[in-house]
Amino acid sequence: MDYVYAPGKNHLFVPGPVNIPEPVLRAMNRNNEDYRSPAVPALTKTLLEDVKKIFKSTTGTTFLIPTTGTGAWESALTNTLSPGDRIVSFLIGQFSLLWIDQQQRLNFNVDVVESEWGQGANLDVLESKLAVDAGHTIKAICIVHNETATGVTNDLSKVRFLLDKYKHPALLLVDGVSSICALDFRMDEWGVDVALTGSQKALSLPTGLGIICASPKALEASKTSTSVKVFFDWKDYLKFYNLGTYWPYTPSIQLLYGLRAALDLLFEEGLDNVIARHSRLGKATRLAVEAWGLKNCTQKEEWFSDTVTAVLVPSYIDSSEIVKRAWKRYNLSLGLGLNKVAGKVFRIGHLGNLNELQLLGCLAGVEMILKDVGYPVKLGSGVAAASAYLQNSIPLIPSRI
Amino acid sequence: MDYVYAPGKNHLFVPGPVNIPEPVLRAMNRNNEDYRSPAVPALTKTLLEDVKKIFKSTTGTTFLIPTTGTGAWESALTNTLSPGDRIVSFLIGQFSLLWIDQQQRLNFNVDVVESEWGQGANLDVLESKLAVDAGHTIKAICIVHNETATGVTNDLSKVRFLLDKYKHPALLLVDGVSSICALDFRMDEWGVDVALTGSQKALSLPTGLGIICASPKALEASKTSTSVKVFFDWKDYLKFYNLGTYWPYTPSIQLLYGLRAALDLLFEEGLDNVIARHSRLGKATRLAVEAWGLKNCTQKEEWFSDTVTAVLVPSYIDSSEIVKRAWKRYNLSLGLGLNKVAGKVFRIGHLGNLNELQLLGCLAGVEMILKDVGYPVKLGSGVAAASAYLQNSIPLIPSRI
Amino acid sequence: MDYVYAPGKNHLFVPGPVNIPEPVLRAMNRNNEDYRSPAVPALTKTLLEDVKKIFKSTTGTTFLIPTTGTGAWESALTNTLSPGDRIVSFLIGQFSLLWIDQQQRLNFNVDVVESEWGQGANLDVLESKLAVDAGHTIKAICIVHNETATGVTNDLSKVRFLLDKYKHPALLLVDGVSSICALDFRMDEWGVDVALTGSQKALSLPTGLGIICASPKALEASKTSTSVKVFFDWKDYLKFYNLGTYWPYTPSIQLLYGLRAALDLLFEEGLDNVIARHSRLGKATRLAVEAWGLKNCTQKEEWFSDTVTAVLVPSYIDSSEIVKRAWKRYNLSLGLGLNKVAGKVFRIGHLGNLNELQLLGCLAGVEMILKDVGYPVKLGSGVAAASAYLQNSIPLIPSRI
Amino acid sequence: MDYVYAPGKNHLFVPGPVNIPEPVLRAMNRNNEDYRSPAVPALTKTLLEDVKKIFKSTTGTTFLIPTTGTGAWESALTNTLSPGDRIVSFLIGQFSLLWIDQQQRLNFNVDVVESEWGQGANLDVLESKLAVDAGHTIKAICIVHNETATGVTNDLSKVRFLLDKYKHPALLLVDGVSSICALDFRMDEWGVDVALTGSQKALSLPTGLGIICASPKALEASKTSTSVKVFFDWKDYLKFYNLGTYWPYTPSIQLLYGLRAALDLLFEEGLDNVIARHSRLGKATRLAVEAWGLKNCTQKEEWFSDTVTAVLVPSYIDSSEIVKRAWKRYNLSLGLGLNKVAGKVFRIGHLGNLNELQLLGCLAGVEMILKDVGYPVKLGSGVAAASAYLQNSIPLIPSRI
Repeated sequence: MDYVYAPGKNHLFVPGPVNIPEPVLRAMNRNNEDYRSPAVPALTKTLLEDVKKIFKSTTGTTFLIPTTGTGAWESALTNTLSPGDRIVSFLIGQFSLLWIDQQQRLNFNVDVVESEWGQGANLDVLESKLAVDAGHTIKAICIVHNETATGVTNDLSKVRFLLDKYKHPALLLVDGVSSICALDFRMDEWGVDVALTGSQKALSLPTGLGIICASPKALEASKTSTSVKVFFDWKDYLKFYNLGTYWPYTPSIQLLYGLRAALDLLFEEGLDNVIARHSRLGKATRLAVEAWGLKNCTQKEEWFSDTVTAVLVPSYIDSSEIVKRAWKRYNLSLGLGLNKVAGKVFRIGHLGNLNELQLLGCLAGVEMILKDVGYPVKLGSGVAAASAYLQNSIPLIPSRI
Repeated sequence: MDYVYAPGKNHLFVPGPVNIPEPVLRAMNRNNEDYRSPAVPALTKTLLEDVKKIFKSTTGTTFLIPTTGTGAWESALTNTLSPGDRIVSFLIGQFSLLWIDQQQRLNFNVDVVESEWGQGANLDVLESKLAVDAGHTIKAICIVHNETATGVTNDLSKVRFLLDKYKHPALLLVDGVSSICALDFRMDEWGVDVALTGSQKALSLPTGLGIICASPKALEASKTSTSVKVFFDWKDYLKFYNLGTYWPYTPSIQLLYGLRAALDLLFEEGLDNVIARHSRLGKATRLAVEAWGLKNCTQKEEWFSDTVTAVLVPSYIDSSEIVKRAWKRYNLSLGLGLNKVAGKVFRIGHLGNLNELQLLGCLAGVEMILKDVGYPVKLGSGVAAASAYLQNSIPLIPSRI
Repeated sequence: MDYVYAPGKNHLFVPGPVNIPEPVLRAMNRNNEDYRSPAVPALTKTLLEDVKKIFKSTTGTTFLIPTTGTGAWESALTNTLSPGDRIVSFLIGQFSLLWIDQQQRLNFNVDVVESEWGQGANLDVLESKLAVDAGHTIKAICIVHNETATGVTNDLSKVRFLLDKYKHPALLLVDGVSSICALDFRMDEWGVDVALTGSQKALSLPTGLGIICASPKALEASKTSTSVKVFFDWKDYLKFYNLGTYWPYTPSIQLLYGLRAALDLLFEEGLDNVIARHSRLGKATRLAVEAWGLKNCTQKEEWFSDTVTAVLVPSYIDSSEIVKRAWKRYNLSLGLGLNKVAGKVFRIGHLGNLNELQLLGCLAGVEMILKDVGYPVKLGSGVAAASAYLQNSIPLIPSRI
Repeated sequence: MDYVYAPGKNHLFVPGPVNIPEPVLRAMNRNNEDYRSPAVPALTKTLLEDVKKIFKSTTGTTFLIPTTGTGAWESALTNTLSPGDRIVSFLIGQFSLLWIDQQQRLNFNVDVVESEWGQGANLDVLESKLAVDAGHTIKAICIVHNETATGVTNDLSKVRFLLDKYKHPALLLVDGVSSICALDFRMDEWGVDVALTGSQKALSLPTGLGIICASPKALEASKTSTSVKVFFDWKDYLKFYNLGTYWPYTPSIQLLYGLRAALDLLFEEGLDNVIARHSRLGKATRLAVEAWGLKNCTQKEEWFSDTVTAVLVPSYIDSSEIVKRAWKRYNLSLGLGLNKVAGKVFRIGHLGNLNELQLLGCLAGVEMILKDVGYPVKLGSGVAAASAYLQNSIPLIPSRI
């Protein structure tokens, strides 16, 4: 089934699934185990505890659900809300759109706040809605921290600020799929009630774990939620947490050991260093885009994403051609433009287990592809701009000094 | 995290998750890939087609959902039925119990037909219900093919016979979690409408795929189902099937390649040979149990399961001690007795990628453990009985003749 | 290339290469590395130090040569001896024969002391030679600790006793290929001058490392040896040890990390526990052979080997048929009879990363094969005898209590 | 033992050991096997046959020896020559130096033809020696095809031309360690008598196989060679070839399956395409070096190597600092300058399983390091020069069109 073999490494620069570190691949290279033996609960206990750190939460309760980000969304919503509940939800790109679609199909009353794709969530509208909602009809605010389709990062602290300003009790539900473990994220400080990510994103694992952190307030809300759910029901998890066996149904043994290894690597590098590395990679990418004379789909600096950059191409170029070309000629995997920005942007994912030289190789590839498709780029220009910045910024590798 | 290390192989004889063959482990030992590249849809297409063969279906539509068996249950129910729909469901052990619990929590009107644990589904009661249901208030029959908690296999052809006898249009939904790929299963011939299994069972993969086959009638029913669902919604899959991109959300690249390898191995051995192998292992286990002077939890031969044997222990022994001892002293993983049969049975899982000498090693271990816990077993007696049968039954390995 | 696929685990009971533990496979699942980076010497240093422990030596110098046991033999001989040097060497089976062949082809003057195959080294003859060698014409005694072809273990302490008795300065060179890490071996206490093993034996790694420990006296001898060698020359190693870069040529990165993992597992289990486990497996095997009414090729208890048992078959049976049958029908790999005992014995290797239930599965298989080939064995008899002993001897697994 | 962990992939650009492709890692991720079962000889047979193709030989006999390149050298020499035989050998860098050292220590009479490091073999001197050797005292010409220390490729066809011109029967022994499978190599056409490589070079496997191809003339010579050898003796191999069991001692099962996968990948890509890829990578590297204003250690274009480039640094820079810095800051592994060129050159290995974007990432890294150590490089300049060439040269990936 490797019928699309190409020599050398695949340069994986989609914003997920991302590159898996070798130590994690090693940790997952194992037979199944009885998940009812004493070993698996002991392992699980360390995971549930340590995974809180990636949310910067000490008060949250964590769930490792055998599902994807879409399932994690569903779990966040159906455990904390009841059908008909009013949600304020921000539509700023394809993934917020999909979440809103889910919210609607789950029979919530979704109050959609739309922005142009390339802009962040319109918090002014949020404020105006909160200001007039003295009756607290808004039960939850749903927001993606980082919109993967456009490379837009929202300011969650401002959302919290507004909720506090109006003393509004709405739950704050956050999609952190392409942010957590890569961008600065502060569950407790920002009063996030449910935050979630998927294992195949910044944690750099295979797909298969929806990772959720719920605040005490979210847990409290879950007691009265009337949404119909079984597989995603937190109560079943909590029951088994109390029993000390942890699993209401069979987990993936491989992903548990993989998560253990992934967390160990994150903590060894240091979560703050991981975030700083993503910041370097994001900035370097944007400098290259600028040097190429292209525009970032993200319209203002305040929304720039350090995990994915959506690059606008001139109208005479179909960005899908760039992605196709990358794969066919350079063994480089880039992200397509989705929905409204299909054909208009291509995306460079720079999240997860990546380093600077990998990014520079990718940027050198993108330059050649741009030339391939007829854009008059100066070869080397993006790499020059990125490396001028990086050469002044990359620290020595702590373990090797 | 291998703090429970013991020398040699772990003898994994729980009825799931089961032993993964080396070629499958190898196939999964890989980095992530862009699932939107042309490679992944091409692979997926072969999987969706080939996986039908394990159901013995040519007319079904298959779904590979990133979930567990519990999620596959939910998908089967919520796609074909609407809240309030009447279901006839058979309670014969812990897993049918859990499925019924799910059916009830999903707001179906469940007509539970209970049997003593150790017996099969009471099809006489089914017949009596069908006989009086001229108005077709029964929308579905839900049945586990093989109850993993008690080692009971139900006769699905009889269920079909009854439905046909009464020309009843109820859907036939089958949990094949511990049967498909191991027991004789005939989706099309038996008129099963939805059948499902999990990757960590007879397919011998890690946990993470709920594998579902839906008949044309089930697909038709899914168009009018009003159950609330998004993650499990077949419509989203069908939309992407039509687009040729196949995935509404991110699949596990590793499990896709693993499934490819698992199917290749199954077809190389031959599905009928795989079933015959399970039949040998099941019979050998039962002969050993008999030689030990112990009783099978399954009360009649017609229900004997070829994938798991639940062994009743004398009342002066706690079967949990046997399982604990197996793990602590022999690196052998056996299944606990669950719920009503907790402490009363231990279970030997003999499904998935196993051969006869592995089973004999396990049986030799069980004999020693029985003696450890005070049961007056004659050491070697079970192995003698099992191997007397096996020595006359095991064929030469076709690839090695 | 898995065209000889058979379901389930291969039961690997040849006396090498042996089963590799999963943690070791994991450790070796990695890309190449620059062996001149600081990481590889740091790793190597720990290996050279820790590997001394498996020899029970504190004064020795160790070498990890990218070769096999045959190469390790050559390294031992050519570094310590000069062409024409007189060696007393014991011929007791195929591997001692091959070593003697090598000694002769390397132009040493080999004084062969032959025993019937199935007997140990004739130390009486050694004594008589030492007694009359006042001129110290004998430069070295070459002896296999455990003859893998016949399952005979020689008593090295007696050899040392004789050398001391006659104050003879001959070097003592020991092939520990199928003993070290499995049998009691005491380099320093027994005054062994060169001991060697191969990675694919009791260390349970892939083939590829010849592991050598040289006493100070052997190192001293190496300074004046005039044997021609380059690849195997210890001097090149010692030069790079002094430089702190350790490798005169490229090592296998994977085997180095694998050796690290293998040593970690050995030390976690405890070297004495490992030896005790081999003792249990050896005794259990011999009890089964006895129960079958068959004879051990090894003629006296004092020579019984705990790592391999050569079983004599009745003259009307060709033992090769047993080995062929094991592979073709039971996915069981047994050792052939070699040279003088070809067709007369088959061998059960019970060394390396194995546990008791694995052995019992193997013994159950051998019983069926014996019946297959027409030997009137009572099925279950060997397993019964072995497990009666094991049930009283196996300790709880320390990490799981 | 991953105490030197750094995020992202290690950029491995030493000229061996090189990057292992994922399919090869997968193929090697396996337990040991009985090498005397029918499976291993069947596999070996395909390997011995197919490996001839990488030498472009149909008449040669191949050997897969569990050793390194150093051992393969020794095998080539000791099987074809006898002590005292006169060899003409070219000293042009560290690896030819080491081979000559070996030749001398093996007691051959070595006629060393030295060139300045950075130049190729002086074939004029060879001609003058052949011209006067009417008595055929020269028994062999020993030459490295590609000197890894300086990045110099010798023209073997000229050596053959000279031998033919003078109708000289000397054997032609070629070290192809850093050339075979990467550079154009034509065993039969060039009348090479022994050619050899190591598995960790262009074949992109772990270290552990010395791979040798011997011409019929070399095999004939081996019959009369009086050099002392056992482990490296081809006769033992040939004996087991005739028996159909192939192995005189235990091979590495993992490397055999790995070699099978490596050959499959090479043939899938096409050997000529592999060579063309190396040619692209070599040229791109040299263009970058030129753009940086640095000199290639290789003095003339005719000797430029497509597998390794040794870059001369200005006298005020210690090239070791560059290598150290690469590892400590960029997770980039470069080759040190060795012996005479220590401190003066660093080496970029561009052989094995590599693609263009990987190289460009490396070059971008080298630029930053040059700046780090005080060389006034223009960032992006090397990448620009290399990618201008590559953008016009890289073909589409055949399997993906």
